[in-house]
Amino acid sequence: MTERQRLNLNVGINSTGYSAHSWRYRTGTKRDFIDYDYYVKLTRIAHRGRLDAVFLSDHPALSFDTEGRSAHALDPLILMTALAASVPDIGIMPTLSSSYNTPYNLARRAATLDLISGGRLIFNVVSSFNPAIAANFGEPLQPREVRYRKANEFLDVVKRLWLSWDPFGAGDPESGHLWNREGAVPIDHEGEFFTVAGPLNVPRGPQGHPVIAQAGASEGGIDLAARHGEIIYCSLLSLAAAHAFGDKIRSRASRYGRDPDAIRIVPALVPIIANSEAEALRRHEQLSGGETEEGLLARFARNAGLDLATFDPDAPLDPDLFAPRDDQRGPVGFTQALRELLTYETLTARQAVRRVEGGHRLVIGTAEQVADAMIAWWESGAVDGYTIQPPSLPDDLERFVDEVVPILQARNVFPREYDTRTVRERYGLPFPTSASGTSAR
Amino acid sequence: MTERQRLNLNVGINSTGYSAHSWRYRTGTKRDFIDYDYYVKLTRIAHRGRLDAVFLSDHPALSFDTEGRSAHALDPLILMTALAASVPDIGIMPTLSSSYNTPYNLARRAATLDLISGGRLIFNVVSSFNPAIAANFGEPLQPREVRYRKANEFLDVVKRLWLSWDPFGAGDPESGHLWNREGAVPIDHEGEFFTVAGPLNVPRGPQGHPVIAQAGASEGGIDLAARHGEIIYCSLLSLAAAHAFGDKIRSRASRYGRDPDAIRIVPALVPIIANSEAEALRRHEQLSGGETEEGLLARFARNAGLDLATFDPDAPLDPDLFAPRDDQRGPVGFTQALRELLTYETLTARQAVRRVEGGHRLVIGTAEQVADAMIAWWESGAVDGYTIQPPSLPDDLERFVDEVVPILQARNVFPREYDTRTVRERYGLPFPTSASGTSAR
Repeated sequence: MTERQRLNLNVGINSTGYSAHSWRYRTGTKRDFIDYDYYVKLTRIAHRGRLDAVFLSDHPALSFDTEGRSAHALDPLILMTALAASVPDIGIMPTLSSSYNTPYNLARRAATLDLISGGRLIFNVVSSFNPAIAANFGEPLQPREVRYRKANEFLDVVKRLWLSWDPFGAGDPESGHLWNREGAVPIDHEGEFFTVAGPLNVPRGPQGHPVIAQAGASEGGIDLAARHGEIIYCSLLSLAAAHAFGDKIRSRASRYGRDPDAIRIVPALVPIIANSEAEALRRHEQLSGGETEEGLLARFARNAGLDLATFDPDAPLDPDLFAPRDDQRGPVGFTQALRELLTYETLTARQAVRRVEGGHRLVIGTAEQVADAMIAWWESGAVDGYTIQPPSLPDDLERFVDEVVPILQARNVFPREYDTRTVRERYGLPFPTSASGTSAR
Repeated sequence: MTERQRLNLNVGINSTGYSAHSWRYRTGTKRDFIDYDYYVKLTRIAHRGRLDAVFLSDHPALSFDTEGRSAHALDPLILMTALAASVPDIGIMPTLSSSYNTPYNLARRAATLDLISGGRLIFNVVSSFNPAIAANFGEPLQPREVRYRKANEFLDVVKRLWLSWDPFGAGDPESGHLWNREGAVPIDHEGEFFTVAGPLNVPRGPQGHPVIAQAGASEGGIDLAARHGEIIYCSLLSLAAAHAFGDKIRSRASRYGRDPDAIRIVPALVPIIANSEAEALRRHEQLSGGETEEGLLARFARNAGLDLATFDPDAPLDPDLFAPRDDQRGPVGFTQALRELLTYETLTARQAVRRVEGGHRLVIGTAEQVADAMIAWWESGAVDGYTIQPPSLPDDLERFVDEVVPILQARNVFPREYDTRTVRERYGLPFPTSASGTSAR
């Protein structure tokens, strides 16, 4: 592995924060999750912390739950285009569905945004797992295996489109011509799911093509990550699991002919920061909606399908409680990560509830404790950085930026200024000159 | 008709200008048509002129013609989202295809942009007529009649989606809830082309829904305009034709149960402004690529399929030369407008070439002459304003803004400041509270 100079940090800015009950325990109004100025404010805070990119997960369907935060409202592609025009430097990582977009339109929109933003786009592709989404697009939900096959072909096509028009690549055009005709090469793709002539009518961008991010921990997701992913967003709850995951992704990428060093693993991290650990633990109970530790345990038992009457929170947990089921419809990453945690470490429920929030790694403590936990994994080589998921916004983002980032900077593992133009450079990722991964089909 | 206080002005900002050869006769570089800062500059000039909206036509396929301007590159929805974030007040009018977008995604993206921009979106829907476009989306080009039936259903769906979630419409939510559950109503649409459950997960916006613009002069296009169009972009070459067109659209809108006063007709106008009429005529010859009047006439004969050897440029033209053909694939608006011009007025080719450029109304002369021509049609009630198509950008836009707009302002037909928040108010269009037109199917 090349010498690693710094860790990378993205931050999720969905709605009122990562915790479902965040809207009750935060600075703000009930309405700001649909207010553009609120997202500009969050992005400016992230910029103040020199974070690499802001991230929006997505779900193109309305959740009818009016008691939790409304996590997915404004369209991430449009919202982040405006944010890129309003806030300099920082990368933008919208989530985009390969199941419900046409490759030509989405390649074109993404290429335009990458160009406009000066090479700041991270294209986070998901295959969309929910029947409520499928119902908005007039088709039954496809099996996971089909969705991932489609996602692979989708990325094949968009990567080729992104490199298909280079109007000035051959230098200044000859007299009487606005651009060089040789710079336009149709892709003439005919596949199982898509037929696309090309070329794209947006030129090759400042990053070659946008950085491709991928989440999803099923076998299909890991395969997609190994083939196309440059930044991997995932759930890793223990250091041993993180090492195993990185080895798996990188060795599979090698098998697809990719450079395994051209992959960055930035798992989610939910930081709950307070002036003391005890205070942080209380805040965790609030934000989770559990109110008390007993409430946290009751939620855990309910989610795991355990009988509260017989459940012993101080007995070691059986990892097989969280084995993925064949009929599982939702993302497998969350239960799988918990199972791995319990395989690598023997934990009681009382311990486990403090290790995971919303399926992701939870770190509770003082700013110093959070920074220590972050640096430890990074220094071990298990991860390249993190996708911070502040449980409430803007509060926990501000604490992270104002208290944790200065510690990371003082320890020389995080920069004090934006010193490169594109997110690709900031991540130390190679500049693509051909559509790698697409010939490996 | 209600008392008309002012005319409305949109302006096309595609590429280097409306004329194919504009890039040779303008201030700028060969590369600025793919440069974001260039479009910000154009939008700021339009803002200085207090124009109502900037407009981008679209064509999601690369044109291989390297000698003309490259009219359609950056994606209009993304480019205009960034422009709205960078320039205040001015409306934005991207062109969007009802044939190659899903209604849920496009309704959501448009609603997000309308919200972010504070109610400045004009949603210009087209059905996309070109086989090169169809080839980028993996399907054969549908017959015009099918495309318009699909466009109608598309607008039915997006209008209903735009009004389907009003989280705070019923006032403050009750304690423990973030928003009001009653404000979310599925649309459960099942039609010929689309099945969409809804509701949209973007709230009802500051304009009720975005203003809907429509172009297209075939019978299908006129029907779509009468049913859904609020702003009509069209080609009108003579005053008599303009009156006839307005009467046709408005009476048909009445038959669909719409208020005929809730439609604004803003035909294209290509202004060529110089310090003298003679100078303006020379500039027209340059910009058209004809170089001389003889060149203009040769181009006209070629486009009309006339034999140059026998063609008499000073003989009256037969309108039936421009009768729409049943097998016509492209937009019928341009030839139809020319035929109407020649029906209402007896013109030679030498006269006709000075009346139309790129299929649209051409006005050549001093700033005073251009302003006079604009005011005359507007005062007669034939049109509500214009969609200015500067032949070259930024030059002809600057001349228009700095020389023609002050005359319009001095004559009290155009405002000196932006005095309303939304483009809907600026156009005096009614605020939609239900999805009008959609029940008329």
